[in-house]
Amino acid sequence: MDVISVIRAKRDQQELTPEQIDWVIDAYTRGEVAHEQMSALAMAVFLNGMNRTEIARWTAAMIASGERMDFATLARPTADKHSTGGVGDKITLPLAPLVAACGAAVPQLSGRGLGHTGGTLDKLEAIPGWRALLSNAEMLDVLDRVGSVICAAGDGLAPADKKLYALRDVTGTVEAIPLIASSIMSKKIAEGTGSLVLDVKVGSGAFMKNIEDARELATTMVELGTDHGVRTSALLTDMSTPLGLTAGNALEVRESVEVLAGGGPADVVELTLALAREMLDAAGLKDADPAKALADGSAMDHWRRMIQAQGGDPDAPLPVAREQHTVNASSSGVLTTLDAYAVGVSAWRLGAGRARKEDPVQAGAGIELHAKPGDEVKEGQPLLTLHTDTPEKFPYALEALDGGVLIAPPGTDFTPNPVILDRIG
Amino acid sequence: MDVISVIRAKRDQQELTPEQIDWVIDAYTRGEVAHEQMSALAMAVFLNGMNRTEIARWTAAMIASGERMDFATLARPTADKHSTGGVGDKITLPLAPLVAACGAAVPQLSGRGLGHTGGTLDKLEAIPGWRALLSNAEMLDVLDRVGSVICAAGDGLAPADKKLYALRDVTGTVEAIPLIASSIMSKKIAEGTGSLVLDVKVGSGAFMKNIEDARELATTMVELGTDHGVRTSALLTDMSTPLGLTAGNALEVRESVEVLAGGGPADVVELTLALAREMLDAAGLKDADPAKALADGSAMDHWRRMIQAQGGDPDAPLPVAREQHTVNASSSGVLTTLDAYAVGVSAWRLGAGRARKEDPVQAGAGIELHAKPGDEVKEGQPLLTLHTDTPEKFPYALEALDGGVLIAPPGTDFTPNPVILDRIG
Repeated sequence: MDVISVIRAKRDQQELTPEQIDWVIDAYTRGEVAHEQMSALAMAVFLNGMNRTEIARWTAAMIASGERMDFATLARPTADKHSTGGVGDKITLPLAPLVAACGAAVPQLSGRGLGHTGGTLDKLEAIPGWRALLSNAEMLDVLDRVGSVICAAGDGLAPADKKLYALRDVTGTVEAIPLIASSIMSKKIAEGTGSLVLDVKVGSGAFMKNIEDARELATTMVELGTDHGVRTSALLTDMSTPLGLTAGNALEVRESVEVLAGGGPADVVELTLALAREMLDAAGLKDADPAKALADGSAMDHWRRMIQAQGGDPDAPLPVAREQHTVNASSSGVLTTLDAYAVGVSAWRLGAGRARKEDPVQAGAGIELHAKPGDEVKEGQPLLTLHTDTPEKFPYALEALDGGVLIAPPGTDFTPNPVILDRIG
Repeated sequence: MDVISVIRAKRDQQELTPEQIDWVIDAYTRGEVAHEQMSALAMAVFLNGMNRTEIARWTAAMIASGERMDFATLARPTADKHSTGGVGDKITLPLAPLVAACGAAVPQLSGRGLGHTGGTLDKLEAIPGWRALLSNAEMLDVLDRVGSVICAAGDGLAPADKKLYALRDVTGTVEAIPLIASSIMSKKIAEGTGSLVLDVKVGSGAFMKNIEDARELATTMVELGTDHGVRTSALLTDMSTPLGLTAGNALEVRESVEVLAGGGPADVVELTLALAREMLDAAGLKDADPAKALADGSAMDHWRRMIQAQGGDPDAPLPVAREQHTVNASSSGVLTTLDAYAVGVSAWRLGAGRARKEDPVQAGAGIELHAKPGDEVKEGQPLLTLHTDTPEKFPYALEALDGGVLIAPPGTDFTPNPVILDRIG
């Protein structure tokens, strides 16, 4: 087996054989196949695609590159959720303790933000004392005692994916459905969850800009999960505008706690409950009532125990950025656009996100929204509050919002997108 | 300017801007763009192509990455030849002194063999004492005194191409017409020749397997040369069977000397004279008579002076391989196929070629042909003689010939391909 023949096969639109896929993933993980060879193959896959058989084998090979976890010792059924990433997407924070409160075990291996989308671990690190890095044994212990855990994925899970993801990031080969689907699903299957719900975002703030691509990605992932014995479904959800009223680390923790307290923005509550019901159904807990668990405080109770189990203080005041700047409505009318990508890039420039993996993030930085698409606004009323510790970034953050906020004349008939666009599975 | 946006542009079938091309070639030469990024871009170019404007700019950027030579000090007009490579293609050896004997200056910067095609420098190194490596000053001196020089290209010419060629070789991105054309032409234009004839090979032993691809490559290169003020034309020539009756280093030197002595195989003589006439026409020497220069010994005289000027002894016996093995005709009839690729791979395995750049070659190894397609053969008569210093390779060399030698029943009507298939320019 040699790598050039594998690259040429995909380059010339042939189907890769199982042996070719197994060999190339293993040889890349071991360093026998060089980065420049894998990136040429990734570009050939990007442009010529992979069929269902190839994607399934590619995913299996990435799983086989590392260890597999096993939750068979737990008394509860496991349920996991993955979001393809968006702006203001703090759903994991209230969702994991909520589903735990309803009787499932939620092993939520999460990532950090890169680019304009926030990362769950960055958000939770805004809580004083909380730590993301657990050993496998610690993770299982928290999961067993609390019912949910949110932590960093260990280095042992799908190392081929870790290496390939970093390569794709610098070679313009990120947005390929076969590569995105196999990357996400290899980690989730290796993690060993029994069921999985996918939140596939659609819109300006998401990887998938249109619903056809999102549907293809969701279908591919649902098939991969099903083929590997994981009960998998997907919701296609709107990411044309940020979720909720905050984008930024401490700001999103605050909003998540509001939801756990029975309040919070309607869209965040709606999506949290919909995903919780999907997870509980898939875990065989069809009688559980997540709305009741939000209302009766049991979800909040699980949140507090989960944060404490990882060293965090749920009662400590959250960090606040040193400087604020308010953006007011330029006219009266109906807010029709508050663009997710524009808000995401703006929050990123304020310090909420990072440009390179090794950069730090500001816990307090980000953006508060005072209106959402469909709302009537009055000229001069506050629309957004920008937060940062580095006020010299305000001009760049404001520049990112250019064209991202549109107000139509008063009385314009406008219906914002629903939160949930479709369901697959 | 950032490399990911350049990769994404070509990936998404956009035309690269002049600024993008200039920047990416320069940044890759300097090491700012990494190999894995350039290989992703090369694959995107392979699959999505480049138009004439892009190829011209890409070539210009590779020329600008290094030094340009200047032959303005020479009293004679310069004429160069480039072959895309084949099996038994020793034409440069008799051609350079022949054209010099007719009054042009021939600066022949040549390469080594890789894979199944032989390299001009490897062939000449079979001559005791001859050396391929000259400084620019030495090269100009030989060219001035003798009229022709065959030597290795200096490191200063188109270093971007040198780096990119090595990368393409290991990433399955060799056979793309825009990349082949810009690679060849950047070196030839940087070298500073006034005119250039391209010998574009077509058939099993060549890069281009069919005449349509060969015609596209030739047209692209002729346009590039013309755009840069080099008088350029191309011959499309047959490479379905080896040129002449030898493939291997010392074997091909011997055959070249036969041609210079007024003998030699008809196809080698025909192609040498055709290319010589193209070069002399392009150099403005329309009255020169290369057939006369072969017949009157002046071409041989230039050969001897050229070899001596580079330390070689034209009278020294050539190396002979330690072992021979003869392949006989398995039946009587008409030889219809003596496949160039099969013979090339077989000679390579005997030691005439190298698998990796750093491997040595055997001067004496190779294959002698005792018949050519179209000849009547008798069962048991010798067809091929295999030569090597490593007789343990005979089985592998014979295996490579499997299916490459076909004999049709006696009296079968068969016309072999002509040597010259088409002319462009």
